[in-house]
Order: sequence, then structure tokens, then C-alpha cells
Amino acid sequence: MSSIFTKIINNEIPSYTIAEDEHHLAFLDAMPLVEGHTLVIPKKEIDFIFDIDAEEHKNLWGFAQKVAKKLQVAYPNKRIAVAVVGLEVPHAHIHLVPIDKMADLNFANERLKLTTDQYKEIQEKIR
Amino acid sequence: MSSIFTKIINNEIPSYTIAEDEHHLAFLDAMPLVEGHTLVIPKKEIDFIFDIDAEEHKNLWGFAQKVAKKLQVAYPNKRIAVAVVGLEVPHAHIHLVPIDKMADLNFANERLKLTTDQYKEIQEKIR
Repeated sequence: MSSIFTKIINNEIPSYTIAEDEHHLAFLDAMPLVEGHTLVIPKKEIDFIFDIDAEEHKNLWGFAQKVAKKLQVAYPNKRIAVAVVGLEVPHAHIHLVPIDKMADLNFANERLKLTTDQYKEIQEKIR
Repeated sequence: MSSIFTKIINNEIPSYTIAEDEHHLAFLDAMPLVEGHTLVIPKKEIDFIFDIDAEEHKNLWGFAQKVAKKLQVAYPNKRIAVAVVGLEVPHAHIHLVPIDKMADLNFANERLKLTTDQYKEIQEKIR
């Protein structure tokens, strides 16, 4: 069965795309910790990020860097934090999270509830 | 003034090295969230990880992957989580954290107090 992220890649589930290339996709997290919380994934479905082929793994982080630079422009007063937890969806994904303080990166925090209009506005701001 | 990590690189402050090459160093975190918590740093002192030159940035993650694979062998029942927070020491560093559950990655958690012998034992186990 396809992971939820593969469904997003295939447009079977809608998402707010931030950036895309042949092998990678970045989109807004559907359960954001903070505004601008973005996921970066390889299109190839692999569970554990460090199991990805060495070259592909480096390229994934190269793509993540480009996305992080967009976030840095959109949120110049925040620090773009990184997390890979890997216990939820079995499809490797990098969280990029614009934070003010350490506590913002706690995945036990309550998630933002955003409207479609708010998501579109954030997407526009970052892209 | 040199960052605390540059002092570690220069052996002015002792640490428990896990892996090293010309441009990168991995060593046990002095305030570990869990056993095996390891830091990966570039030897060049740059504050924000995404400000690193694109090729060097990719190589840093390539080195981190090799370290993560060592951790995976040492802790086969755990998931090696990744975090870059970047609000404490102004020298980019990647946290590699062997976790059982999401809550293990919370940086507000109490840190382990380990003895020198315990650190040496963990270092041996991972290397």
C-alpha cells in the first residue's frame, strides 16, 4: 500500500506544495507545530532516511537546503530547525520548522488549526 | 572567540570521538537526552547549517549518514532521530538521537548524567 506521502506525490491527497523537482517534494505539514512548518520528502518511498542510497541521501539534503532558504526569507526572525523522527509515517521525511525557541520543536505540542485560506497565504509567502 | 565545538576539534576540551574525517567530527553529546546521543559538526565554524556552502552542506549530511549507520548497529532496536535546533552553540551541529518514542526527542527533557566509564563504554560500543 502507498504511504500517505506517496498519495500526496501522486495528487491523490491534496497538499500545499512549496517546492518540487524530479526526485523531491516539499509541502506544508498538515499538522503544523508553527506557521511555515514544512515537510521535505524523497519521491521514492523509503522508511528510514539513513537507508537511502548515499548520493540520493545527500541530494535530499541539498533539496532541503533550498527549501530552508525560502523559509529563512519568509521568516527572517526565526531559526529554521530540522527534525527527522521517523516513527509515524513509514516514508522518510524531514521537518523544517521556523522556531523562536527550543520549546517550539516539541512534537508533543498542540498543532495549529489552519483554514484553507491561511494555508494558501502561507504557501504564497514561502514560495 | 572560538566556539566550544572548535575547542573540542582542537582538543582544548576533551570529548568522546565517534568518527572523524578532514572536514567533520562526531562525538558524544556532553548532555545526552538518551544513551548514544551524538553530535555531528563541520570543522569549519558556521552558525546556521543552511548557510554552509551547498557542496559542503551535502557532504556534512553524507558524513552524518555514516555516523547514523554506526548508531543503528549499536542500537538496532531504536530509531536514529535527527535534530538541528541551532539556538544554543553558534556552530552548526546535527543531533543524532537513538529513540524509542517521539517524547525522547524533547530537548526540554532531563539529561542523562554519565560517568567517564559509562561514556567510554558507549563510545566503544558505537565506534
